[in-house]
Amino acid sequence: MSYRQLEDRYRELAQLEHASDMLQWDEAVMMPRGGGARRAEAMATLSTLIHRGVTSAETGAWLERARQESGLTAWQRANLREIELDYQRATALPEALVHRRRRAATLCEQAWRVARENNDWNGIRGALTELVALTQEFAARLGEARGLEPYDALLDQYQPGVGRAEIDALFGELKSFLPPLAERVMATRPKPLPLPGPFPQARQAALGRELMRHLGFDFERGRLDVSHHPFCGGDPHDTRITTRYDEANFLPAMMAVLHETGHALYEQGRPHDWLDSPVGQASGAAVHESQSLLMEMQVCRSEEFLQFAAPIVARHLADGAHEGAWQADNLYLACTQVERSLIRVDADEVTYPLHVILRYELEQALLAGDLPVADLPQAWDAKMQTYLGLATGGDHKNGCMQDVHWYAGLFGYFPCYTVGAVMAAQLFAAARQRRGDIVAGIACGEFAPLLSWLRDNVHGRGRLVDVSTLLVDSTGSTLGIAAFKAHLEARYLGH
Amino acid sequence: MSYRQLEDRYRELAQLEHASDMLQWDEAVMMPRGGGARRAEAMATLSTLIHRGVTSAETGAWLERARQESGLTAWQRANLREIELDYQRATALPEALVHRRRRAATLCEQAWRVARENNDWNGIRGALTELVALTQEFAARLGEARGLEPYDALLDQYQPGVGRAEIDALFGELKSFLPPLAERVMATRPKPLPLPGPFPQARQAALGRELMRHLGFDFERGRLDVSHHPFCGGDPHDTRITTRYDEANFLPAMMAVLHETGHALYEQGRPHDWLDSPVGQASGAAVHESQSLLMEMQVCRSEEFLQFAAPIVARHLADGAHEGAWQADNLYLACTQVERSLIRVDADEVTYPLHVILRYELEQALLAGDLPVADLPQAWDAKMQTYLGLATGGDHKNGCMQDVHWYAGLFGYFPCYTVGAVMAAQLFAAARQRRGDIVAGIACGEFAPLLSWLRDNVHGRGRLVDVSTLLVDSTGSTLGIAAFKAHLEARYLGH
Repeated sequence: MSYRQLEDRYRELAQLEHASDMLQWDEAVMMPRGGGARRAEAMATLSTLIHRGVTSAETGAWLERARQESGLTAWQRANLREIELDYQRATALPEALVHRRRRAATLCEQAWRVARENNDWNGIRGALTELVALTQEFAARLGEARGLEPYDALLDQYQPGVGRAEIDALFGELKSFLPPLAERVMATRPKPLPLPGPFPQARQAALGRELMRHLGFDFERGRLDVSHHPFCGGDPHDTRITTRYDEANFLPAMMAVLHETGHALYEQGRPHDWLDSPVGQASGAAVHESQSLLMEMQVCRSEEFLQFAAPIVARHLADGAHEGAWQADNLYLACTQVERSLIRVDADEVTYPLHVILRYELEQALLAGDLPVADLPQAWDAKMQTYLGLATGGDHKNGCMQDVHWYAGLFGYFPCYTVGAVMAAQLFAAARQRRGDIVAGIACGEFAPLLSWLRDNVHGRGRLVDVSTLLVDSTGSTLGIAAFKAHLEARYLGH
Repeated sequence: MSYRQLEDRYRELAQLEHASDMLQWDEAVMMPRGGGARRAEAMATLSTLIHRGVTSAETGAWLERARQESGLTAWQRANLREIELDYQRATALPEALVHRRRRAATLCEQAWRVARENNDWNGIRGALTELVALTQEFAARLGEARGLEPYDALLDQYQPGVGRAEIDALFGELKSFLPPLAERVMATRPKPLPLPGPFPQARQAALGRELMRHLGFDFERGRLDVSHHPFCGGDPHDTRITTRYDEANFLPAMMAVLHETGHALYEQGRPHDWLDSPVGQASGAAVHESQSLLMEMQVCRSEEFLQFAAPIVARHLADGAHEGAWQADNLYLACTQVERSLIRVDADEVTYPLHVILRYELEQALLAGDLPVADLPQAWDAKMQTYLGLATGGDHKNGCMQDVHWYAGLFGYFPCYTVGAVMAAQLFAAARQRRGDIVAGIACGEFAPLLSWLRDNVHGRGRLVDVSTLLVDSTGSTLGIAAFKAHLEARYLGH
């Protein structure tokens, strides 16, 4: 049976993905610098071998025959559909391009770590220019095969079913809704009492681990470590999240841990019988971000969560004085401040989409060739001024060099954060409505009802259905901005 | 040119080896337990894919044609010879056996970690029995292809050119030479002043790193971490060693670090242009152990090294009192005590070969089917009594469960430790004789002359020549026991 042969082939390729995912984690968390060049070669070769396995004549022939086979279950049919899509994408790309682009991306990311530390834009410009050129070729070929414009082909890789039309519509609404909201909140929201540090890294890590456990993270099947940029990687039975620590301020690391825990719970909850098959993967990057943002923004910055968490936070970090500062209501104020800032990952949920819109517009210009890489810092500053009223003043480290994405070849990914934030609000509103015990559970540290709802409605479904069906099944409607607006108005304006 | 195609194929396979080596390190150092089953599958698949690449029809055809090609350099000819050998071994083994054995080995090693902690022989017996059976089949097939008895085929994998005849001759001499020597040393050697602890792990690690740097380990290209069993793994540009710490006694961890540093320097010094080709690999496991034991036993337990190292050790670990204990002469005494003990890795260099001979004899009996796995603990105790006059008294943790090797499928490896110790003495005697500045350098912390000699005579040669030629070129004679005896007599009897 050809379908079975495809399944076996993909199970084997999944082991190369496992190796690649673990090497990528290791590269960011453990690898000494001198290992970089050889690691880039290994990563590129793993990508090549996966590509070769997908595009082989055998795979093509099995697919041809599998299309005719009857008696497949719904999961098998969905798996076949995902394999078709993967085959279509992979056969659009020559092996040499896959190898070159992966190697260039790994080397560029390594160089970015050094250049960013030194605010050295000139030191990274060349590598980024090469990566943009390789990505242009990549996107053009992918688009041709998929019948999409090049940039849409990149979006389609990360979140099929949410294209430029949907994104433009959402972002258009956000561009008019958010700036006046931000102004109003900044003018009216009380400031929290200061939370006095310093906070030693080991204590912050212990706090992070305790909160992760409460949310349902299984340390028999995962780890928390440190890296330049927080991320979630690894395997569903060995899920590894990272954060970075600032000893003067514990909130960014704590929130990054809670955010990445949302990603990790999705990975740990993927459908057990399909972990090594395309249909068992997470349903795209926007849905993934919806899970991290649901956890961070909807759940963990809520009054209910902070009622539960405040004593735990204080136990790990408080110095015995400043008791008022460690109360839930003050932590809630600290977690829901709104301000214009240069840094996306530290931004509040009201201004965050503006950071994303800026990147969405710039990356389209970069890939279309309308914006030369050399002019990126100026273009960045101009948009920063427009959307956030701020100037970087040559601080590229906190300007166009702040995020790893472009330097790792991840063009077309940024919109997923805001699409994910919108989805998160929609999903959480539905969850609360459909299960009355979720919010009450959060307030007393009982997260099982929430996790159970997410497992049933998102995590455990993998790619069985497309994102639109997933949302309709779980929330009753397709992607829309209403719940996100309602959430922001309720939290920040008390509506 | 077919030879070039072989080179390219092997460069690609080397990237899978890189992934496999890094996953193995990660498995021992980082992986949470729950990741074990899926990791075992990934490791098995990587082995399968490497095997498939080596045994493919293309490889066979390229080899056929490459044999006829003229104009190859000496390195290329040696590389072709190594590829032939690899092909001969790999084609002897069915892919399914490679996959099953690798998976069984990874799972058995994981189970051993838990069982050993709990002294639970019954908990590991089944997995070991399966692994022995798979290894019997493996050895029989390998032996048939190589024209060797099964056990010799295992030895041949780890150290070609040092077979059972050579090992039996060496071990025969050691069995009569060592026990009376040990008795005499135990009766006469003064005891050192006690070295009072405790020694916090972080301080021991800092000491280890400082000594590693002095010996020439490059931390831009490597790491030191913690694992159940000290080992050296990784990549020549990212060489990772591990140790384990006892806060009551710093010497075992320090000596393990120095031992593994010897391995690491070999890896970091492999021929630069051939790192991803068979000819650029280390010249077998016995030669590898010769490098770790040369560093640990010949160099770092010498009076000269301890003159240099004593103040460094004291700076990291001493408590300000007990000054006499931290002097070089007392550390030298502590590093050269001889005593009967249950544990191989903690054994002194006089009794160590007896631990190896015991294992060498038992593993032959296991593989021949003369010793059922179920009877291993009794057989272990009997040999322990014969060679070391000790009984484990049911302490399997420190008996037949103490070493990872068998539980990781490494049968035929143990003899390499003692062959390596003998080679180490022979190489170090030649090095001292040929470069007068080596010993003087060690006493003042100047290790460049030693490292340079090792780079030229061992590390940088890869597998260009066989082990016998390597020894003749560097020492003037083939493998012999004279230098090892002379070393022990000089150090322990003052001859």
